[in-house]
Parts: sequence; structure tokens; C-alpha cells
Amino acid sequence: MRVSELAREAGVALSSVKYYQREGLLPPGVRGAPNQVEYGAAHVQRVRLVRALLETGGLSVAVARRVVGALDTQGAPIAEAFGVAQHAMSTARTPVAAPSAVSRERILDLMARIGWRAGPDNPGVTAAARALDGLGTIGFTPSEEYLDAYAEAAGITARADLEALTTRSEADGITELMVVGTVLGDPLAAGLRRIAQQDATHDAFPQHGAAVVDRETRR
Amino acid sequence: MRVSELAREAGVALSSVKYYQREGLLPPGVRGAPNQVEYGAAHVQRVRLVRALLETGGLSVAVARRVVGALDTQGAPIAEAFGVAQHAMSTARTPVAAPSAVSRERILDLMARIGWRAGPDNPGVTAAARALDGLGTIGFTPSEEYLDAYAEAAGITARADLEALTTRSEADGITELMVVGTVLGDPLAAGLRRIAQQDATHDAFPQHGAAVVDRETRR
Repeated sequence: MRVSELAREAGVALSSVKYYQREGLLPPGVRGAPNQVEYGAAHVQRVRLVRALLETGGLSVAVARRVVGALDTQGAPIAEAFGVAQHAMSTARTPVAAPSAVSRERILDLMARIGWRAGPDNPGVTAAARALDGLGTIGFTPSEEYLDAYAEAAGITARADLEALTTRSEADGITELMVVGTVLGDPLAAGLRRIAQQDATHDAFPQHGAAVVDRETRR
Repeated sequence: MRVSELAREAGVALSSVKYYQREGLLPPGVRGAPNQVEYGAAHVQRVRLVRALLETGGLSVAVARRVVGALDTQGAPIAEAFGVAQHAMSTARTPVAAPSAVSRERILDLMARIGWRAGPDNPGVTAAARALDGLGTIGFTPSEEYLDAYAEAAGITARADLEALTTRSEADGITELMVVGTVLGDPLAAGLRRIAQQDATHDAFPQHGAAVVDRETRR
């Protein structure tokens, strides 16, 4: 198919496809007749993926390029692909100052308390410590119970992620899910947390009720 | 203190403070001697908070302005402040296309299955459905067990969030934590998920081991 069809098929504007191409986010098409380049189903999928990484995942173009590059590296070792994914989201936002030593210590304490088999250089340590710093600016120092609850939740999602990986057979599919799942699992978790918060509000502040989704009517 | 001291105290560049001021993210100082404006401890805290919202929370300036505005509205009803926070993160990223009807249905199904007391207009529905769409581009359709695990994790963090809110007495402190906690709880959860993934990798792919944080040496 031509580039205009590719855009239509993937459901994005032609200008977006051309932008993705310029930014090196799409593999090249196949040269056919003079001045004609052909694209296939793999390109349609890639355009959709790039849009999801940029829009839903909130990645910068530079980070999305690294993620896509990891997918295109045939037979990359699993640990390496995971590393790219792990760092992708961590560097997706504006570069910021290092977290405070106190917050970093609290996260390392938490890891040791739980016995997580992970090193202090895991990018999640910095991300979580920075969040603690931010909460500290409004005078909120999370209790041990609060951090334990978040850690328990993290463990549940991580085990589901790894479980899902083992259902994929070929090495390529595993890497792909590892990378994309790491990026898009965050907005999935964040979205569900919004809904669960609304639910939990009923118990903590019963006067602020809200409607329940009815299984039948969906309203 | 003067504006230069304010910047030093808060640990950000003077140009950042001036930028926050121009963007309406800081309350005005108190006019003292001619050409002199005084700032206090509350300004220092606000500068730190704004930096956390923009950098760690990844909010746009426009969304951060709404969040800060919600904090400055004295006595806003709790449900309203929560609404601002709920929408803040959802609109923090590039505006994107609506999720597919199929993904939206899956999230509404999940909500009904769990019995979450939340409406279909909760912004988390759209965010979670979009993430499902993104995962679909690599041919990954999460199983019911996968979504249930994510929902269970969301419930645990949401209950911890609401529990933390009830430890705050004054209405202001509750609103503040509700708004900021919603924004900064996401990077906290995402950071811990990275660490938990590394831990879980040991079980799923034992050949890709990594060091454990030693409680004593922290290395």
C-alpha cells in the first residue's frame, strides 16, 4: 500500500506518518515502481505502536526511537531489552535533579525489607525517591504501611507482567511485550488507580458518593 | 526573603522561579519597601511543589496551574478537588484520540466484575482503555487474570491513599494531599513496579540474575 493508505489504515494523519518517518520511528518501505514505495501490514502495526508510545505512554520522540530500536534489534538478550524498557519511562520526562539522599534511603530500605532481588541502580529507585521528595513538599511523609501497600501492589502487577511474558513463545514476542508492556502498563495502572480511588472514597468520605457502573446498562 | 533567596532556598534556578511567576504558578509576594517584594516559607514550599508537579509528575504548565488553583481555592469541596486531580494526570499528556469501544467495554466489564463504585465518566476509564489499545498494537490482549491483577493492585494503592487522607485533619491538608498524591502517586507506583519487575524476572527467567540490595551495605 502507499503511504496515504498506510495512514488511513492505521487511523492517523498522513502528516503524522511522515513525521514518524523523518524521526526514524518507522522501518523503510519497499521500493517498487519509480517514485513509489510500498508498505505492508507490519508498517500499519508499527504506526499504531508509535502513536501509543508517544500519546498514551507519553514518551518523547528520542525515547520512543530507543524503544523502537530495541524492538528492531534481532535476538537482543532479554535482560538488555528489559533494561531499555526500564530506562525508557524513567527518562521520558524532563531531566530533573537527583532525589534527596533521605528519599533514596527510604526506597532502598523498602527494597531490603521486602527482599526484592533488585539492585540500587534500578531506574525505579530514582523515580520512586523523586516522588517521595515531591510528596514531602506538601509535608506528607508516607508511613511504612503506605509504602508497603504500594510495594505490594507493584509486586502484583510485576508478577502479572512476567506471567504474561511466559505465554509468548518466540524471543521476539517476549522482548516486544517486555518493552511495550513496561511503557503502557503505567497508564493502565494509573487509569485503574483513578477508578479505584473513586470507589475507595465512598468508604472514607461517604457523603461524596458517585454512581456505580451497572453491569447491564453501563451507565 | 528576596526572590533570589527564595530560589536558593527552594533549590531551583532563579530563572525557574521567574518562569513559575510569569505562568501564574506562585502566589504573589508581599510588597515592602519600594521595588522590593518579600517571600516567605510558604513560597519556598510552593516552588518545590511546582517543580515536583512539572518534573516528577510530568504535568504541563497549564495543568499544573489548574492543580495549584485547586489548592488555592479555600474550602473547595473534597469531591471537587479530587475531580481536578483525577483529570489533571489524564489530560497531562498530548490530547489523543478516543479509545476503541472494545477496550472501553473491557474496562467497564472489569469495573462491574469487581463492583467498583465508580462511574463510566471517571477519567481513568479512558486512560486504561487507551493503554489496552496500545498493547493491542503488538498483538497482546491481556487476559482477564492480568486485568484482575492490575485492578487488585489499584485497589490496594487507592485504599492506602484514602487511609493517608484520613490522617490529615484540616480540610486544606486533605485537599492538598488528594491533589498532589494523585499526581505523584503515579511515578511512585511506576518506580516501584520497575524494581518489582526486576525481582520477578528472577523467577521467570532465572538465567538473568541481578544483585540484591544488601540491608547493611546498600550495594
